[in-house]
Formats: sequence, C-alpha cells, structure tokens
Amino acid sequence: MVIVIGIDPGSRHCGYGVVLSRGSQIAALEGGLLAVPDAAPLERRLAALHTALLDLIDRHRPDAVAVEDLYFGRNARSAMAVGQARGAVLAAAGARGVPCFSYTPQQVKLAVCGSGSAPKQQVQRMVKALLALASEPRPDHAADALAVAICHAQHAPLREALA
Amino acid sequence: MVIVIGIDPGSRHCGYGVVLSRGSQIAALEGGLLAVPDAAPLERRLAALHTALLDLIDRHRPDAVAVEDLYFGRNARSAMAVGQARGAVLAAAGARGVPCFSYTPQQVKLAVCGSGSAPKQQVQRMVKALLALASEPRPDHAADALAVAICHAQHAPLREALA
Repeated sequence: MVIVIGIDPGSRHCGYGVVLSRGSQIAALEGGLLAVPDAAPLERRLAALHTALLDLIDRHRPDAVAVEDLYFGRNARSAMAVGQARGAVLAAAGARGVPCFSYTPQQVKLAVCGSGSAPKQQVQRMVKALLALASEPRPDHAADALAVAICHAQHAPLREALA
Repeated sequence: MVIVIGIDPGSRHCGYGVVLSRGSQIAALEGGLLAVPDAAPLERRLAALHTALLDLIDRHRPDAVAVEDLYFGRNARSAMAVGQARGAVLAAAGARGVPCFSYTPQQVKLAVCGSGSAPKQQVQRMVKALLALASEPRPDHAADALAVAICHAQHAPLREALA
C-alpha cells in the first residue's frame, strides 16, 4: 500500500491530490487547493502553503510527495514565482522526512493517458476514470495534482524494484 | 533602531547578513552562510534552510528581511532553483510575521556604491567600509547578503515616511 500526495504548484494557487494505491488498484483520498490567503503578502502566503502541506502530511502520513516540474516554456520571472511555491512545499515535506519526486508534464501525461502529448481534457477524463470518480475533479490544479500522484504511484513499484 | 536580515539566496548556498542601523549609523551583527547539508536531497536542504532562517529570526528579532531579487539574465531552470531557495526563506519569515522586501542587484549597488552598475569588488569594498569591518566579508554570498541588508536599512526610513 502506497500513499502519495501530488502537488501542482502555482504562483497563486497550489493544487493537491492524495491517492492510495495497492497493487493495480488506486483510489483518491482527497483533493483540492491548499488554503492560502489571497490578499496577504507573498511571505505570508508561502508560510500558509508550508503549514497547509505539513497538516496534509500529518493527516495522511504519505510515503512520497510528487510534484509537477514545469519550467520549459516559462520565462525566468514566472519560473521564479513557481519555484518559490515549490520551495515552500518541498521544505515542508523535507521537515517531515517525506521523500519528494519531480515529474515533467510529459511524464505525467504518459503515465495517465499513455501519450506524453495528450491534451489537458484527456488527462482530466483519465484521472476521473482511473480513480473512479463521479465527475472530473475541479479545479484544474487539483486534477493536475491527482495526475502527478497517479504518475508517482505507477512509478513507485519500478523505483523500488530498481533500488 | 532597525534590525535587518539580508539574504542572498542561491540554489546551493544561501548567504545571510544581519545589520543594525540607528540614524546614519550602521553595524554588522553577523554574517555567513545558512547551514544546509550539502549532500542531502533537495527537500531536506530546503527544510534546513527554512529552519536556519527561523533560528536566525528568533535570535535577532529583525524588523525586516531583505532578499536579493535576481531573475534577469537567468534561464527558467536556474530561476526555478533560486526561486525554491527564496520560497523556503520567505516562508520562514512569513511564519514569524517578519515583513519581506525585495531589491534588485541594481538597487543594492546604487544604495551601497552610488551606482547601479558598480562592479562586485567595489560593492565588497563599500560593505567593508560602511560596516567598519576589519576585512571584506567572506564568502561572496555573505557580502551580498550584508549589501542587501544595508540597502534596506537605507530605504526603511523613506518607506516609513511615505507610509
């Protein structure tokens, strides 16, 4: 049994999705946006992000945190903004001793849809299907976070076999 | 009296410098590199960075944290790496309720040397002179962190007057 927290870090909103996998079975435990005050200064929002992930880790005791790793097609300024969110998130996982893994959007799409160039809607449809959800997860950031968690859950057995 | 912690965030090393200013007087309280294990995974290093800044804040109770803001001339990958370090640092300041301020290298050079295009060595010489240090601060990241702290200490009275 493996519990994975997936994170889709954005400069304003940070999606999360928690999945539990056992053999070929996989299920969603939770998903949404990490609660961050919208109007607060940057350092307060990053502190809230850090605290929100600590809480999530303490509730689910995951085996891993999987983070979407997106810098291609970004300029330096937007990469810096997303990097800051990633930094707050990774620092929280590190504080709890939870190992972190990064996956590119191509790796996530390949794991979820069988094609590294699958469009966004196809990813959302497959997340719904794989997790047997009643509807496609909302908002998009939560769907993307569930997708990266699924991606890690698929990679984890191979990783362990190789280790 | 104003206490400022300056931070020069790097993807591997993060410099810090603490200054105390009173009127036109300014002095260095401390400077160096935040202690981060070199060989550890990224999430552990970011957690250590977060903890190291919390410790520094608890010891000095600063009025502000000033961070060098450098993304021009970087590619997205290196901006993301520096952003992650900034994220861990800013989250720590936010957790303690210390307001954060960003300055570009040009603003720092202008404040310390009177020219936004001053070369690195001139900045180091002026940091030594302004803080009445026996020698130029080492390593470079610590000197840069002291420079951004001086920059904020110079801006702070104007900021307060405007507020």
